[in-house]
Amino acid sequence: MRIGQEICRRVDELAAISEDPNCLTRIFLSPEQKRASDLVISWMRGAGMTASTDAIGNVVGRYEGVVPGLPALTVGSHLDTVRDAGRYDGMLGVVTAIACVEALNRDGRRLDFAIEIIGFSDEEGVRFGTTMLGSKAAAGTFDFSVLDRVDAQGITMDKALREFGLDPAEIASAARSRDGILAYVEFHIEQGPVLEAQGLPVGCVTSISGATRYEVEITGQAGHAGTVPMAVRQDALAAAAACVLAIESRCAAEDGLVGTVGRMEIGPGAINVIPGLVRFTIDIRAPDDRQRRRAATDVTRQIGQITAKRGVTAMIQKIHDMEAAPCAPWLMEQIDRAIDAEGLQPFRLPSGAGHDGMAMIDVADIGMIFLRCVGGISHNPAEAIAVSDAEVGAQVLLRFIRDFQQRASL
Amino acid sequence: MRIGQEICRRVDELAAISEDPNCLTRIFLSPEQKRASDLVISWMRGAGMTASTDAIGNVVGRYEGVVPGLPALTVGSHLDTVRDAGRYDGMLGVVTAIACVEALNRDGRRLDFAIEIIGFSDEEGVRFGTTMLGSKAAAGTFDFSVLDRVDAQGITMDKALREFGLDPAEIASAARSRDGILAYVEFHIEQGPVLEAQGLPVGCVTSISGATRYEVEITGQAGHAGTVPMAVRQDALAAAAACVLAIESRCAAEDGLVGTVGRMEIGPGAINVIPGLVRFTIDIRAPDDRQRRRAATDVTRQIGQITAKRGVTAMIQKIHDMEAAPCAPWLMEQIDRAIDAEGLQPFRLPSGAGHDGMAMIDVADIGMIFLRCVGGISHNPAEAIAVSDAEVGAQVLLRFIRDFQQRASL
Repeated sequence: MRIGQEICRRVDELAAISEDPNCLTRIFLSPEQKRASDLVISWMRGAGMTASTDAIGNVVGRYEGVVPGLPALTVGSHLDTVRDAGRYDGMLGVVTAIACVEALNRDGRRLDFAIEIIGFSDEEGVRFGTTMLGSKAAAGTFDFSVLDRVDAQGITMDKALREFGLDPAEIASAARSRDGILAYVEFHIEQGPVLEAQGLPVGCVTSISGATRYEVEITGQAGHAGTVPMAVRQDALAAAAACVLAIESRCAAEDGLVGTVGRMEIGPGAINVIPGLVRFTIDIRAPDDRQRRRAATDVTRQIGQITAKRGVTAMIQKIHDMEAAPCAPWLMEQIDRAIDAEGLQPFRLPSGAGHDGMAMIDVADIGMIFLRCVGGISHNPAEAIAVSDAEVGAQVLLRFIRDFQQRASL
Repeated sequence: MRIGQEICRRVDELAAISEDPNCLTRIFLSPEQKRASDLVISWMRGAGMTASTDAIGNVVGRYEGVVPGLPALTVGSHLDTVRDAGRYDGMLGVVTAIACVEALNRDGRRLDFAIEIIGFSDEEGVRFGTTMLGSKAAAGTFDFSVLDRVDAQGITMDKALREFGLDPAEIASAARSRDGILAYVEFHIEQGPVLEAQGLPVGCVTSISGATRYEVEITGQAGHAGTVPMAVRQDALAAAAACVLAIESRCAAEDGLVGTVGRMEIGPGAINVIPGLVRFTIDIRAPDDRQRRRAATDVTRQIGQITAKRGVTAMIQKIHDMEAAPCAPWLMEQIDRAIDAEGLQPFRLPSGAGHDGMAMIDVADIGMIFLRCVGGISHNPAEAIAVSDAEVGAQVLLRFIRDFQQRASL
């Protein structure tokens, strides 16, 4: 339990670095990012790594292999948080990776590849509303048009970078070369209830689900709740309710697929008025892109049928479409083997949440290890893990790293 | 068309008396109520009536019968409005009744009963959130505890009455005696689409529907829209959607019955979060109280079943329960006869909206004549009627009054 305890202690230490003393909030290019980066760099150096921040503010540590300059197995996660965050989302992966290198370093062990640990500076996208800025820069896919985006205080990303001490013109230098990365592997809490339900501390991720999002506006006819007979109503909420159930039913029909109506606004919204206007969102995710597209097509067709039958109209607008990031089979096999070697049942599951691997897949094959979290709760101060799981997770990651076989050598 | 035109002209004149120059808003005990009352009193006097305001601010006009002091056929509606109101809701009934008495007076005709016209000072309840203050006072059922209620400016009803020049202690004097009223009859726009769909200008109301209202709170489990498999979700919105459809389906199964979910709030309300909490309202109305109670019982039982099956919880709170006010068969027959005598098809329909008859039923048998309105639209500046319908409606009401047979003489 020594490693698990040390990991949790460090996570707590990081969680204390927050712009709000009452809860954990640490956003991109904040003074708190700088303090957290300094702390992580000190841990990296203590683990025998060279460490510094790159041009987008990522913390990058490197543990050389048997000879300096070998291609690296890159292990990473993010150091930024949502507002009023949990303390494990992101940070746990960075801290656990450092603990693994520390163990290797303690044994004086060098591998036939380097280990690179990246603590990404932005994954959540809280400050500028655009996610994975750190991993996109590392993958060489940073979209420079976002430099003009402003935060809630009207500060552009360009200016925020400069005030942080970074030069926007240098961001391209954060890009890793494909030759230098053997694989990208991320260790992360599951943020869902599947491992807990399975009674397993860790699992191997098959794919980071792609997502399609829609905004739907249903227009019916508002009317007096007492005077309009049921048969002639054009009730926008009743139509929306039928859509919600159709989405739920369609997405429950296939493993891995999920569909959510998370937001809904009803107008005019009075107890004695038939709703004439309803707006709602749809979020459909699946580990397989074709599966997601089929579901999205079916759902939008069903909305069309439901609203036509009810004499109301629907406007459906696609507002987001992101492809899945499938994990590489050769990495999944090695993750399964590491789990098995630690005496645990290998178990595979998709990731419905987005992760830095979605960006890193553009520069390397990706793999992910999920750690069980309590109640599947995340993005919430109640986010929690067992210390014993932190220990087991670190042992699995360490085993994976020690036994890692480069693809070329397979 | 002369009477119809004059009625519409007077409705327009009343509609110009508003606290807001851009729309019609005339609330209880306002300076605008006083101006509107004075105008109505002048029309009443011009029609050969004595007229004044009573202790609750109702305008009361009296046209004596063949001898002074006979019991009265009371015809009334209200002179207050909702905010941003239509101009016919309430006012049309008062103005049309005056036009009928004017016609009798022009012919020098006296009936073997008096005619009393009441323009109620408060039916909508906008100012103090409690409805039918005028008709309740007239019916002798005024609840004196409401005098402590405050309006949006913190002014108590007691103070507002005094500032208007009324003495709260005198309100009981506004109560009519049962002996003095032969019947209460109201002429009102339908506020619904039924007559328009039937192609009929007028209809005879069978009952003013009773209403039961609930507030429902469904508690599920919020969660990440990507990470929680469909099978283990406790989605409060999906459960609420099933409830909305159950309410719609149950209430569509019987004529006259209506059920509406008009308000719904979803929490936490983010595109990527499964809703954990939904609050919504239910409004169930029916012309028959047993029919309404059966529907309410079925609906609440179904909500219990739906939520139990989905592993979420429902709290259901009854917040309103008002009995139906059935129209008297002997009055409905006379209304049908008047409609028929004017060469129109008699047609009966319930009133889903509340009216002063719900209060007046405590002091007299009630009857109602509905006039077709455009598109069923009401409580809206777009509220409209055809001038020709105003004419036809006035002829029907006049015929009803002229031919009115007292119950005792039937």
